[in-house]
Amino acid sequence: MKEPIFADRLEEALERVRHPGLVGIDPHPDLLPREYEVARERAAPLEERAAAVEAFSLALIDVVADRVAAIKPQSAFFELFGSHGARAFERVVSHGRARGLLVIGDVKRGDIASTASAYATAFLENAPAPCDAITIHPYLGADSLDPFADACKRRGGGLFVLVRTSNPGSALFQLHGDPPLCDVVAREVVRIGASLMGECGYSSVGAVVGATQSSELARFRALMPRTPFLLPGYGAQGASAKDVAPAFPDRLRPWSGGLVNSSRGIAFAWREGASSGASWKDASSRALDRMIADLRLALGIRA
Amino acid sequence: MKEPIFADRLEEALERVRHPGLVGIDPHPDLLPREYEVARERAAPLEERAAAVEAFSLALIDVVADRVAAIKPQSAFFELFGSHGARAFERVVSHGRARGLLVIGDVKRGDIASTASAYATAFLENAPAPCDAITIHPYLGADSLDPFADACKRRGGGLFVLVRTSNPGSALFQLHGDPPLCDVVAREVVRIGASLMGECGYSSVGAVVGATQSSELARFRALMPRTPFLLPGYGAQGASAKDVAPAFPDRLRPWSGGLVNSSRGIAFAWREGASSGASWKDASSRALDRMIADLRLALGIRA
Repeated sequence: MKEPIFADRLEEALERVRHPGLVGIDPHPDLLPREYEVARERAAPLEERAAAVEAFSLALIDVVADRVAAIKPQSAFFELFGSHGARAFERVVSHGRARGLLVIGDVKRGDIASTASAYATAFLENAPAPCDAITIHPYLGADSLDPFADACKRRGGGLFVLVRTSNPGSALFQLHGDPPLCDVVAREVVRIGASLMGECGYSSVGAVVGATQSSELARFRALMPRTPFLLPGYGAQGASAKDVAPAFPDRLRPWSGGLVNSSRGIAFAWREGASSGASWKDASSRALDRMIADLRLALGIRA
Repeated sequence: MKEPIFADRLEEALERVRHPGLVGIDPHPDLLPREYEVARERAAPLEERAAAVEAFSLALIDVVADRVAAIKPQSAFFELFGSHGARAFERVVSHGRARGLLVIGDVKRGDIASTASAYATAFLENAPAPCDAITIHPYLGADSLDPFADACKRRGGGLFVLVRTSNPGSALFQLHGDPPLCDVVAREVVRIGASLMGECGYSSVGAVVGATQSSELARFRALMPRTPFLLPGYGAQGASAKDVAPAFPDRLRPWSGGLVNSSRGIAFAWREGASSGASWKDASSRALDRMIADLRLALGIRA
């Protein structure tokens, strides 16, 4: 039996956990607990620094694995350590999958033609550690997204195309023109996604839509009704569970069709005043419980 | 004595070779000469496939090293082999620099804040193999470019921001709005580049401007007069030496202010009818000679 495509795997996983919370694995070396501090020692060998980042990431996955549908490792904090970091990233992806999680590689690649195909194969098809989905850049054009979609057709992977982000400087380009550029990108996401629809009614081609623009979210949901949303910005970046509610209009399955990411708010919860004294794992675990409870409350989900 | 910044290193290297030809190192596994064919064997271990791609790339660098200012290894064709490929990429960068070449890592990264900083450090600052410059995506906003510019300020590296590309589908996003989005991006490239000016009068913040839009090139040069251009599209992608001339308006130093990339036209020249029978290295070497002669003729450069 063929494995279901990403869209269906995602919906199945969301149905199981009954909330759209996603844990970002962003092992910023300067923020790691003391036992991993070699990661931030600029004079230490990259191999040792990568090993510390890997160890932290694997431990964090173990803390959250039973309670979320997916994790999102951030490639940059692994690539920081060159090929040693690339190997650590592979192990993190493998571990996430071995723990039964969907793994969204936050790799933000983007290129054209055979070069885009190479990236797609690298992250969605190759052993040892294909991701279930990856994030990609749209700037090069809709045709630059096609090779990634083709890889998804071959292997059942998924994509999250950057549409609208929550950083202060995003508006100048993403809102340029009338209609704004992000709407034009959204239309292409829908068009390309139409050939990758799951049985669940959602596509395997998703969109990154910044969660701090709560007023925009309902509009994006209307533009992309069958597109899984990846919503960054929750927690440390300022968005609340209520802010993301417009992305989840399905009253029967209110966890459906999106993922709400929290990275630092979970991984580095031990750095917050309220968690001082607790072990970093306890602090992360409690922060995840709070996020799940917040999301369920805001979306009207019974536990 | 501090090493000159990228803008000045580039101009010095261009002055030395007296042409703006750049060799792209895009080791597409399906196009490699027979002696490297393990690279395209899907069943072979990634480590062996990466080793073949590395060996080809190092040999290609040796073929061209004495005649060009810079090379541009394409990260995707290395990442295709996971961490083994990442290691091969590092060795290719190191070898290029050891041969006295400027190395432009065609990595097309793009993210925000500390994540963008991590990418910038990974490719522009870290041992074992920092690139002299890298390509980056602008979609996330001008503030997403700042952490990359900051890394350039620390270590003298350079950037080439994607502004306008030559693929058929690029217009829908890049020409969106009035003025077109690419002009807005160009203005930001100039603004950010103003803080990274070299003594040569050019900035270390460059722009990727597709060379098949010859009619647009003069306009982009007027918009970005002190910005080094990275011009893809020469040769295999259809642009001629004459097409790129508007990017090089300096009559006294007509090689100045840009790089004209040829990847497959050099690396895989042996596959062209005219070169059949010759060794791949001879075919590549002759293709490079032809490109240099073409560029010098079109730009009015005496050898």
